Amino acid sequence: MNQYNDASISEINQVMDAAKSAAPIMRKLSLSKRAELMNAIADGLEQSGDELLAVVMGETNLPDARVRGERGRTIFQLRSYAKACAKGDWIEASIDTAIPDKVPPKPDIRKMLLPLGPVVVFGSSNFPFAYSTAGGDTASALAAGCPVIVKAHPAHPQTSELVADIIHKAVESVGLPNGVFSHVHGTSFEVGKALVMHPHTKAVGFTGSYSGGKALYDMANQRKEPIPVFSEMGSVNPVFLLTEKLAADPASIATNYAGSITLGVGQFCTNPGLIIGIKSDALDQFISSLAVQIGNIPPGKMLHPGIVKAYVEKRAEALAQQGVTLIAASSTEASADQGVPTIATTSGAVFLKNNQLHQEVFGPYSLVVQCDDAAEMLAVAHQIEGQLTATIMATDNDINSHVDIFDAIVEKCGRMILNGVPTGVEVCLSMHHGGPFPSTTDSRFTSVGADAIKRFARPMSFQNFADHFLPLELQNSNPLGINRTINDELSKQAVS
Amino acid sequence: MNQYNDASISEINQVMDAAKSAAPIMRKLSLSKRAELMNAIADGLEQSGDELLAVVMGETNLPDARVRGERGRTIFQLRSYAKACAKGDWIEASIDTAIPDKVPPKPDIRKMLLPLGPVVVFGSSNFPFAYSTAGGDTASALAAGCPVIVKAHPAHPQTSELVADIIHKAVESVGLPNGVFSHVHGTSFEVGKALVMHPHTKAVGFTGSYSGGKALYDMANQRKEPIPVFSEMGSVNPVFLLTEKLAADPASIATNYAGSITLGVGQFCTNPGLIIGIKSDALDQFISSLAVQIGNIPPGKMLHPGIVKAYVEKRAEALAQQGVTLIAASSTEASADQGVPTIATTSGAVFLKNNQLHQEVFGPYSLVVQCDDAAEMLAVAHQIEGQLTATIMATDNDINSHVDIFDAIVEKCGRMILNGVPTGVEVCLSMHHGGPFPSTTDSRFTSVGADAIKRFARPMSFQNFADHFLPLELQNSNPLGINRTINDELSKQAVS
Repeated sequence: MNQYNDASISEINQVMDAAKSAAPIMRKLSLSKRAELMNAIADGLEQSGDELLAVVMGETNLPDARVRGERGRTIFQLRSYAKACAKGDWIEASIDTAIPDKVPPKPDIRKMLLPLGPVVVFGSSNFPFAYSTAGGDTASALAAGCPVIVKAHPAHPQTSELVADIIHKAVESVGLPNGVFSHVHGTSFEVGKALVMHPHTKAVGFTGSYSGGKALYDMANQRKEPIPVFSEMGSVNPVFLLTEKLAADPASIATNYAGSITLGVGQFCTNPGLIIGIKSDALDQFISSLAVQIGNIPPGKMLHPGIVKAYVEKRAEALAQQGVTLIAASSTEASADQGVPTIATTSGAVFLKNNQLHQEVFGPYSLVVQCDDAAEMLAVAHQIEGQLTATIMATDNDINSHVDIFDAIVEKCGRMILNGVPTGVEVCLSMHHGGPFPSTTDSRFTSVGADAIKRFARPMSFQNFADHFLPLELQNSNPLGINRTINDELSKQAVS
Repeated sequence: MNQYNDASISEINQVMDAAKSAAPIMRKLSLSKRAELMNAIADGLEQSGDELLAVVMGETNLPDARVRGERGRTIFQLRSYAKACAKGDWIEASIDTAIPDKVPPKPDIRKMLLPLGPVVVFGSSNFPFAYSTAGGDTASALAAGCPVIVKAHPAHPQTSELVADIIHKAVESVGLPNGVFSHVHGTSFEVGKALVMHPHTKAVGFTGSYSGGKALYDMANQRKEPIPVFSEMGSVNPVFLLTEKLAADPASIATNYAGSITLGVGQFCTNPGLIIGIKSDALDQFISSLAVQIGNIPPGKMLHPGIVKAYVEKRAEALAQQGVTLIAASSTEASADQGVPTIATTSGAVFLKNNQLHQEVFGPYSLVVQCDDAAEMLAVAHQIEGQLTATIMATDNDINSHVDIFDAIVEKCGRMILNGVPTGVEVCLSMHHGGPFPSTTDSRFTSVGADAIKRFARPMSFQNFADHFLPLELQNSNPLGINRTINDELSKQAVS
């Protein structure tokens, strides 16, 4: 299926050398010029037409509306991060002016973020546009001023190749050297390893499975010079159904969740794979209603054979656990390339005893955990692993009477949704798409929203510098008109 | 010498359990209340009087002025981070308001930093106040809202115990539970390991040697749940002498550096351990002048026997390297507890071939590398490892004609000083005290200045929350009056 050869070690050395040479050029590239590059990539995607979409659909089984929408999202990401890049808030410019008569004298010292250097990006399988070749990691690394090396996801190599061509052209159109962006193929583990271990590599972005993301993280930590790896490794995105809220309208909550669980054949990292309720008539009604709807939703083609295979296996494994009962599966028979919408249930006691049930079943699957009481729900909240998101369906009364559950959930996730669904990750500055381990390898960073840029940048202080040797961001006159903290006060003022 | 017992595993479990229980209390503690706690610790230090100073001097051999000054610095750190904490810029509050008629609808989403949880702090040997028990790591972790567990440095356990008492009293005085701050002793590696490996520990701060800091980092990465370790592991702080600048006044540059090299018996992480020049009459004059002054500076007592022993050994090792020549050592005979001011020299060619010469000799030692030409100086700049600081002594002409050297240096350090000395680390927001590996384990964070708080905090998004369930920082009316980014614009406004 994959017509591209794995990159050889000598090819990898070549692209890494080119990236290293491009690094100082990118570092010194003005924020507006970085934005220009990103907008040029967005323009290229916009002009790519239906031909590209056909390739994506062919490689991913994703429907037209989805790939069209995802391309739009990717263009929006590039443009909005470009805007954020040029706006410069992310660069955290800070100026402390000299106090010569302090004892000892305080020097003039100014700080801003500088790029880390070449960033290796691993394309994801489930977002062929938005978290692949020209996706969020690439956009944020370029905004930070880092050259990027993308390893195409082997499930959509031609898509990746075509998008890479768009980026190459954009790089050329703004007059930057080739080394700013490189693209390699690699079906073998060795290619990824060589990229992560290469001494010129200064950071890694990854979106995918726990096993893949953790392996890259471990490798990077064992380098002579360890480097940061931001792996976004998925999550079961628990949903806590509190009693008063659930009792008010179990059927409509079930409708929303039937939609969220099966959205995109469940192939989202924010898919709600775990629903926790307290035994009651309302929970029974919720389950019955969810069962009917899940039964009515037809199976959908999954991204690629590897994903289907994993779904079939993990689903079977989950259903085979002692104390787990199948509630409903799609009543439409599935072909070999499809994922079957499925819900199962177990008790709180079983869930607390069996860690296997905490694992993600990537696809349209969700487990309803029926707790005996609020205390057991609290125990579940305490026991679950770190998550990208957690949702609480609750009235004000519910929250006020279960502050302990609310508090336990906050500790476990990077985004908390009140009375909604976790699917749908808005691209905006206030989005945190990250979370405690194992949902990511560093809970302090996000992979969505312009703050994602900060993963690939480090602060640098300039002490006692003549104004004309400072980066524009830190010069007295504030030529870029950016926000800066001057002697502890944020402003856009010049330094007098 | 150490009258305190190593903490047992059961004691460690006890303090970690207490820290875990205190974590949600600290998380929900208002910024002003956190500041109150920090100011109470500062008050306690201020009131601690000369008795405490006598203990510190007895345990560290540091002179009166230094320990007095360092206590002042520590008080200033606590108060200034408390101010920054309450001011709230660090919390990066961000609000995106809902756009219900967008397709799909944009939810209301708001983000801010939340504490990571219990932080283990390893006191340093060279800063018994400022980077030990109530030092920068403790101050920033408390500001972030994290309970702190300090492992006393075994070289000044009584100092640590007395400062811990001050903190315990402050914790009590503001009505917080004991678990907010714990203090344990440990001369064995096992105590440190148990603290870092404890499942309740969520982050680690360390200041000290490469071997110590790297060992903790490696352990933390091998946990089932890896946690961030910020190790500040020192540096040789290279100084690049450019020709026009040096020629203008080699003697006065030598005077400044004789002072900087021997300041505090060279026991600073920013001590200039490497001076790189280009062979010339001016460089000869600089070396001669430095030699005279180093000869005249008497040896000083070092912090503790382990430090002296390491200095004697590493100095001997450095001087024994092929192609290294001793230029000058203090002409005053040293006692067994003293470090001898020393400068040595070698050629650029020898330096480039012998990695041993890149290593830190912790103490009043510096190596002058004499390069044949600017190209060799550039090669040195490219080859050195990551540094906390790098200094460039240069005129405008020097910089303009050696942009390549300037660029190479930027890539290697966290703070660049123009025409100054690296010793003296101003406590202010614009200070970055950090740098590329191996100077620290994560170049993206600082251990000095209020941004040090961010090491111990993670972003959290709240989606679709009723105003009254949001943290105060994110509520519509902006009750704390902090800076927030509202729909991409920074302001102190309320959300209407």
